[in-house]
Amino acid sequence: MPISPNFADRLIDAVRTKGNPCVIGLDPRIDLMPDFIKSGRGEPRRDVVRSIISDFHDLVIEAVADLVPLVKPQLAFFEQYGSAGIEAFEHTVAQARQRGLLVIADGKRNDISSTAEAYASAFLGEADVLGQMQKAFDADSTTVTPYLGCDSLEPFVDACVKHSKGMFVVLKTSNPGSRDFQDQIVASTGRPLYESIAGMIRELGGQLIGDSGYSSIGAVIGATFPEEGRRLRALMPRALILVPGYGTQGGSAESAAACFNDDGLGAVVSSSRGITYKFPTPDLPCHAFVQIVRENALRMIDDITSALKTS
Amino acid sequence: MPISPNFADRLIDAVRTKGNPCVIGLDPRIDLMPDFIKSGRGEPRRDVVRSIISDFHDLVIEAVADLVPLVKPQLAFFEQYGSAGIEAFEHTVAQARQRGLLVIADGKRNDISSTAEAYASAFLGEADVLGQMQKAFDADSTTVTPYLGCDSLEPFVDACVKHSKGMFVVLKTSNPGSRDFQDQIVASTGRPLYESIAGMIRELGGQLIGDSGYSSIGAVIGATFPEEGRRLRALMPRALILVPGYGTQGGSAESAAACFNDDGLGAVVSSSRGITYKFPTPDLPCHAFVQIVRENALRMIDDITSALKTS
Repeated sequence: MPISPNFADRLIDAVRTKGNPCVIGLDPRIDLMPDFIKSGRGEPRRDVVRSIISDFHDLVIEAVADLVPLVKPQLAFFEQYGSAGIEAFEHTVAQARQRGLLVIADGKRNDISSTAEAYASAFLGEADVLGQMQKAFDADSTTVTPYLGCDSLEPFVDACVKHSKGMFVVLKTSNPGSRDFQDQIVASTGRPLYESIAGMIRELGGQLIGDSGYSSIGAVIGATFPEEGRRLRALMPRALILVPGYGTQGGSAESAAACFNDDGLGAVVSSSRGITYKFPTPDLPCHAFVQIVRENALRMIDDITSALKTS
Repeated sequence: MPISPNFADRLIDAVRTKGNPCVIGLDPRIDLMPDFIKSGRGEPRRDVVRSIISDFHDLVIEAVADLVPLVKPQLAFFEQYGSAGIEAFEHTVAQARQRGLLVIADGKRNDISSTAEAYASAFLGEADVLGQMQKAFDADSTTVTPYLGCDSLEPFVDACVKHSKGMFVVLKTSNPGSRDFQDQIVASTGRPLYESIAGMIRELGGQLIGDSGYSSIGAVIGATFPEEGRRLRALMPRALILVPGYGTQGGSAESAAACFNDDGLGAVVSSSRGITYKFPTPDLPCHAFVQIVRENALRMIDDITSALKTS
């Protein structure tokens, strides 16, 4: 039996409690961080790297924990700092969860059979270490890619069932190149490939629909393609949609709103650089940084909730 | 200017020197490891996890370093042990390279724009840490997924150019579910989707063809689909092909041979569990384990090279 409610229910609860569906993206980029977090650290050894990234996210989490329901650490930016970055990732996930935030580990992982199981263990489940089951990253949810097929996603679904977690399948991304393969018209259906994948997401999600009416098996749809978002929203009415691409990548609040249902629910919208790296000068003091991150988040919340009211 | 020769040339050189195209997959699964590597370790804390995985691979590398040209650590199995696993990954990559083995970091990563750049930095390049450019994992090559489109792969290609590295784009996988989306017939071409992606791989690879005639931009094609392998081989004559699925996943040496050119080159074949976890009893002593891994590798080499001679 799951030890905590269905992930989709926890997400919908959190969105209702906080009054908005905003996700703060955590993309560690030491070169873009304010000076105060980097000064007096000495040589850039692994413990220094780990501390800089951990401290930076502690401040961001402090700034936004009472405002938003979720954070989305992006694995790529942690991995570029090696195992020191991954240690900071572990710290950041734990810190966010402790502050009551839901965590989407954005790794876009996927593989087949026992390898997919290992990824599911890493992000959502646990692994056998000398007879003890140990959790590795223990996020609330993760992102996965679909190209390897339905059987490659099943180990993730199994982990979601077993550990009350969630997953978002990459469906239609916000970049121009998303047209290259995602938009290809499939001969047998006369519809874009992403619609075939949407059908699979709906199927897989059937077993994980919570009391909220939403499923813990969701999709990633970029904010830059509102028409596709609207169609996919209709094709997968019970899927939670993670909408990246708002802000820096060119997606507007109005575009993001296309991924929501008429109940004003069913999607969450993420912003990373526009929240954590948008400050006037790198030499600002710590308290000013926390204040500006908070203001950036409040501005996003206002923008998204306004768009949802008028859409 | 690249500081070392083109990755494809280094790979072809190594295949010629060792006399075979075999890749030993390194998939840490502590539960499957022999008793001697686990006993007397005490509580399964992070330093114990790191040591067990590192020591296990040191032995495997010792057993096969003079036999094969490449190893392929699979990130998923390291990640399931958290940052301790990733520390062991760093150790294993460095150890393999020090022993003259080429390393394929099998992570099937991908994302868009600056996030794809961060993944490329992590596995193939370097990141700015307080003004110093630091390498994170520094493998010779990595695997990437194509669903996000051509622009999502370009940062990896750029890293290959800049750092003399290689990459293998996931094209046709060995699982039954590879039929779900990879095999969909594209309306505009009347051909399977994977052939569109093969065309992109050929295009991207044009700028990285070495003196060997092969490109550092390659593809992953499972050993279980020899007909598709033959057709894709013909469509991308200069691409290096990584062929997983030999052995445990049901692909035969004859099937894998379909991915080679008539010169007997152009592909490498990997086996993981069939080499490192195929021993009669978990309570064998260390020297017996090393000997058996060596014999498993020699059996694979014999099987693959025989199939290439008769194909």
